Amino acid sequence: MATDPKSRTPDPKPRTPLEPAQRRGRSTRYRIIEQTALLCAQRPGAEPSVAQIAAAAGVFPNQVTYYFGSKDSLLVHAAFLGLLHDAEAIESVGLRTADAASFRAEIAHAVLALPSLPSVARALAAAVSRPALAPVVDKHRDLLFRQSARYLRRLMRERGWSLARTPEIESRTFWSTALGAVLLARAGSAGAAADLDLAGTLTVREN
Amino acid sequence: MATDPKSRTPDPKPRTPLEPAQRRGRSTRYRIIEQTALLCAQRPGAEPSVAQIAAAAGVFPNQVTYYFGSKDSLLVHAAFLGLLHDAEAIESVGLRTADAASFRAEIAHAVLALPSLPSVARALAAAVSRPALAPVVDKHRDLLFRQSARYLRRLMRERGWSLARTPEIESRTFWSTALGAVLLARAGSAGAAADLDLAGTLTVREN
Repeated sequence: MATDPKSRTPDPKPRTPLEPAQRRGRSTRYRIIEQTALLCAQRPGAEPSVAQIAAAAGVFPNQVTYYFGSKDSLLVHAAFLGLLHDAEAIESVGLRTADAASFRAEIAHAVLALPSLPSVARALAAAVSRPALAPVVDKHRDLLFRQSARYLRRLMRERGWSLARTPEIESRTFWSTALGAVLLARAGSAGAAADLDLAGTLTVREN
Repeated sequence: MATDPKSRTPDPKPRTPLEPAQRRGRSTRYRIIEQTALLCAQRPGAEPSVAQIAAAAGVFPNQVTYYFGSKDSLLVHAAFLGLLHDAEAIESVGLRTADAASFRAEIAHAVLALPSLPSVARALAAAVSRPALAPVVDKHRDLLFRQSARYLRRLMRERGWSLARTPEIESRTFWSTALGAVLLARAGSAGAAADLDLAGTLTVREN
């Protein structure tokens, strides 16, 4: 199984400018992730094939496994890249809503409509039974939780709102419900929406 | 693709005793589901192979696809059989807890420890991108929601508690969070547990 080229040549000085070959490797790797995320966003719910990914990124199919070890690993990277991108786009909800109740309702609505949500749910589920993917999943999931907790802290500060639990537990509970909603959405329904109360899992309140 | 034998010979009188061949087919089909559920329960997090399933059920591997069309379809059946079985075993929590707050905490704790939860999350995720599985998933998911809503209604009646939303929305929100928790659990951790507030998604209160 091919490993990431970087892991074979440990770099003692990470801030040294990259050698041309390394730089090319890094940008090919990123281009593959980016194009996979785009393909997933274009057709939420459908999983792109290695051939489609290779064609979109302008690489040979075997380069996909060379850089990522497996397609499932690439899908985790791409899904979270899409999610972090989508999540940034809806951050402004917290700053423009009139009050905490509208924030809870609007952020829940916006998150259930994120096009990247099905890809993330699918990538995470594939990883449940694949211990080899654990480090990749852990890294991305922790980044998501950290960003969400930071967002909540900033919101509490700027709006003068408060939470009934820590920002970390608030984030984990919220994202768990949103991702579970994708799994339980009526098949064929466009988003994760449906008759569940995601807004009700948030404890954001006026002081 | 093989279809369920019953669907090829529509039975105009469903209550007529089954012909021996049909009866045998039906029990083989159920045995395959049952053994798959057992295999999933024995090794939560690991997905059994068709060979392992066939060996456990005492059938030929091609009978698995004959009865279910695909392994993913069988896994949905088996995962929900396991979940309904597990869920029944913890129903008594609602009758013996001292108050509504202990009920919320104990039922959340018990559900996150259900051995069938990872299999259900994985089976549902596999179905997200497979429209052919939609009818199977819809049937089982609706049964789970109906049973949970009925349980909640009975509990409200017998304990004199109340909910801040309908039993249907309460069930969907709760199960979404529990299944999402499996997806977001730190890799390698035994259950879905972890630092999220599943109990806090329940609105069960004393009147």
